[in-house]
Amino acid sequence: MPTYLHKLMLMHAAGEKFASTSKLADYINLDPIIVRKDFELTGLKGFPGVGYKTDELIEAIRRFLGWDSPRRVCLVGAGSLGNALLGYEEFAEYGMVITDVFDADPKKIGTRIHGYPVQDVRRLPDAVKKSKPHMAIICVSSRAAQSVVDGLIACGIKAFWNFANICLKVPPDVVVQREVIAGGFALLSMKLKKHSPLFETE
Amino acid sequence: MPTYLHKLMLMHAAGEKFASTSKLADYINLDPIIVRKDFELTGLKGFPGVGYKTDELIEAIRRFLGWDSPRRVCLVGAGSLGNALLGYEEFAEYGMVITDVFDADPKKIGTRIHGYPVQDVRRLPDAVKKSKPHMAIICVSSRAAQSVVDGLIACGIKAFWNFANICLKVPPDVVVQREVIAGGFALLSMKLKKHSPLFETE
Repeated sequence: MPTYLHKLMLMHAAGEKFASTSKLADYINLDPIIVRKDFELTGLKGFPGVGYKTDELIEAIRRFLGWDSPRRVCLVGAGSLGNALLGYEEFAEYGMVITDVFDADPKKIGTRIHGYPVQDVRRLPDAVKKSKPHMAIICVSSRAAQSVVDGLIACGIKAFWNFANICLKVPPDVVVQREVIAGGFALLSMKLKKHSPLFETE
Repeated sequence: MPTYLHKLMLMHAAGEKFASTSKLADYINLDPIIVRKDFELTGLKGFPGVGYKTDELIEAIRRFLGWDSPRRVCLVGAGSLGNALLGYEEFAEYGMVITDVFDADPKKIGTRIHGYPVQDVRRLPDAVKKSKPHMAIICVSSRAAQSVVDGLIACGIKAFWNFANICLKVPPDVVVQREVIAGGFALLSMKLKKHSPLFETE
C-alpha cells in the first residue's frame, strides 16, 4: 500500500487524473488482478476502462491505512538509523508528525538532526506528557530498548515501531511493529540460493 | 528465521546446549506449533522433551538461509541509512562480508565509515570486477537507484537489496529484495486503528 501511495502521489503531482490498474501493476511488478484486489480493500470502485481517479484513490488508501489524520510520533535513539528515519521525507506525506527526539548521548543532546532538536532522554516523561505522541519509534540498542519502552508505556504510549533487535514484552493493550533489518538479507540470500543452485561452489 | 538465529546465538554464547521450542516461542511471542513448523523447514529433528541442540539448530538455520558460506556484499550510498547498515554488527555473524562502499559525495570519498573506506562511485566498475560481490545494497536516492543498478548488473551482480523508494526494473536472472521503510509504519498505523477505534476522535 505505501508503494502504491507513493507512486500515485508522484502521478498526481504530474497532473495524471486517472490511474489504471495495469499501469500500477507494471510499475510494482505485480499481476493487475492482485492490484485490483488490493484496491478493493479500500472500498473504492474503479471506472471501467480508465481505472481510478488518482486523488480519490490516494484518499482511499490513506483512510485505509489510518493516515488520513496526523500521527504524532516521538523517536528515541538518534544514532545513524534514527538519523536516517528523521531524514525520510515521505513520512510527512504519510501524516507522520515528529513531536520529540530523544537521546542519552551528551554530545547529541542540544543539537538538531534534520531540524529536530535532540532532547535528553531523562526529560522524556515530562516532554511526552505535553506532546502526547500516538506512537514511539525505538532506535536504541537492544539492551536499552525494553526499559525505554516500559518508561513510554508508563507515560501512556500504546504503539511502538521497534527497530531494536529484541522482542519487546508489552501489555495486551499495546501494539508493536517490529522491524527485523536482517530479514530482508535473509530473503535475498534465499532467493539467490534458489536462483543460482551452483552458487555454493563459486 | 533471523530472529530465532539471533536468540539462539545469544543462548549458545551463554552456554545453553539445548533450545526448547516453548522457550523460543515465548521469546518471539508465537505459538510453539508455529516455531516447530519453522524449524521443520530446516530439515533438523528435535529431541523429545529437550528440544534441539543449540549448535545444530544454528547451523541448520544458517544452511536454510544460505548463510553457511560468506556472502560478499558491496554498498552504494553512504548516507545515514548506509551508515546505519554498515554499523549493524549482526550482519558479520550472518556471513555478510562488506567488500566495497561507494558514494558520489566528494566530502565522503576517502573517509572511513565504521572502518570501511568510502570509494568514488565512478571507481565502481573497476572495484567490483576485482572484489566480485554476490550482492549489492542500494542506499542511493530513488532518482539515482535505477542507473546505479544498471551499472552493477553490467558488472555481473545478480542480487540487490534495495532501500531506495523505487521499483527497480531488472532482467529475469536478477533477484531483488525491496525494503519499503514506510511499510512498518503502515502496519503499525493499521494495528493502532483496529486497537483503538475511538482513536480518530482524540
